Amino acid sequence: MSETKKTNIILFSGDYDKAMAAYIIANGAAAYDHDVTIFHTFWGLNALRKDDKMLVDNKSTLEKMFGRMMPRGAKRMGISKMNFGGFGQKMIKDVMKKHNAMPVEDLIDMAQEQDINLIACTMTMDLLGLRKEELIDDIEYGGVAAYIGEGEDGAINLFI
Amino acid sequence: MSETKKTNIILFSGDYDKAMAAYIIANGAAAYDHDVTIFHTFWGLNALRKDDKMLVDNKSTLEKMFGRMMPRGAKRMGISKMNFGGFGQKMIKDVMKKHNAMPVEDLIDMAQEQDINLIACTMTMDLLGLRKEELIDDIEYGGVAAYIGEGEDGAINLFI
Amino acid sequence: MSETKKTNIILFSGDYDKAMAAYIIANGAAAYDHDVTIFHTFWGLNALRKDDKMLVDNKSTLEKMFGRMMPRGAKRMGISKMNFGGFGQKMIKDVMKKHNAMPVEDLIDMAQEQDINLIACTMTMDLLGLRKEELIDDIEYGGVAAYIGEGEDGAINLFI
Repeated sequence: MSETKKTNIILFSGDYDKAMAAYIIANGAAAYDHDVTIFHTFWGLNALRKDDKMLVDNKSTLEKMFGRMMPRGAKRMGISKMNFGGFGQKMIKDVMKKHNAMPVEDLIDMAQEQDINLIACTMTMDLLGLRKEELIDDIEYGGVAAYIGEGEDGAINLFI
Repeated sequence: MSETKKTNIILFSGDYDKAMAAYIIANGAAAYDHDVTIFHTFWGLNALRKDDKMLVDNKSTLEKMFGRMMPRGAKRMGISKMNFGGFGQKMIKDVMKKHNAMPVEDLIDMAQEQDINLIACTMTMDLLGLRKEELIDDIEYGGVAAYIGEGEDGAINLFI
Repeated sequence: MSETKKTNIILFSGDYDKAMAAYIIANGAAAYDHDVTIFHTFWGLNALRKDDKMLVDNKSTLEKMFGRMMPRGAKRMGISKMNFGGFGQKMIKDVMKKHNAMPVEDLIDMAQEQDINLIACTMTMDLLGLRKEELIDDIEYGGVAAYIGEGEDGAINLFI
């Protein structure tokens, strides 16, 4: 069977450690020649936010509040366990640096270099008031239909 | 290949936003003619609870405590991030209303109209002391065997 | 088709209830003759820790801190919802005892008796400073490559 296998990951979580797991699996699958897609939905969208504070017009008060409360980029995301107001995340980052493990920001760069498909969920963007100019470049946009189309042929499908 | 594809979702989480994701994917897959099943286990069972407080006989004290502490229906579930004692959930609901997004209660109705199989995990029902009369009508009941039977033929299998 | 079906579960979570779900599904799939593998990564590794406090040489201060903060074995893990500083977990355990439901420690023994493949993620072990002598016996060790190799042939793939 010479067909390319597909790995499709839904990244729903906004936790640093879960984003790390998602991107490690994705990069691993790409190294094994899978055709890989990560669908970023809900809090997972935060991993795709640009580092800089963007000034975007026409945001409602609620949208501005979401924008301010949610982290801009993986670098600012907390961890799912033992976060202790950011202390646990600092421990994780220290230990990652010591072991030369790639931070999530770099895993995302690597994913783009490996042609992994990064998709931002347009429905959640609408809900949370996130605009395309607030997200990193060279990603795609889609909804649940895009996911089903990929997912139904997936060798590995995960919800993280 | 004319075979119907299957999507099987285990809804373990009792968070409003995760239940929303589960039901959006499920309804999307049904729209693409998948045969869809959602297995509600642990806290995910709360999405199937009736709105009304039911008086059920023969509950132990522990079962009554669980019954009181767990939300009755999706409408009362909190969100997984930024809940802030219910404030985040209110923000999400306000923004959903503004965008005419369907609340989870309506997504569940839609799922039943689309003949999506809603299964309640009998083992968890036993553990938490939930009775059939406390759950919504027209659902099925099963255990891990029912899940494996469906899941092993699934094109898309997710644990949410 | 006489081929053996595969079930592959990534256990990322360190929550007692999620570990319980993972091991119930795994044991169920093994009962249906699936070839089953559980990859323990991040906080999921805690389920494989030995009960006893192990004295291990050459740990850095950070590694010792992680070692002390993380639970040794499933028995000490908290639950994902309504934990209330351990009270919810006690309620769950009481109710499990009443219903003769197997605690996770026993589900792990059962998994080993059913020849379920338990794999510890070596990358996370490095990061968190966990050593082989701190984990239970008769398990395997591997990284993301081991997972992709199993996962791409999985009938059921889940991330828990």
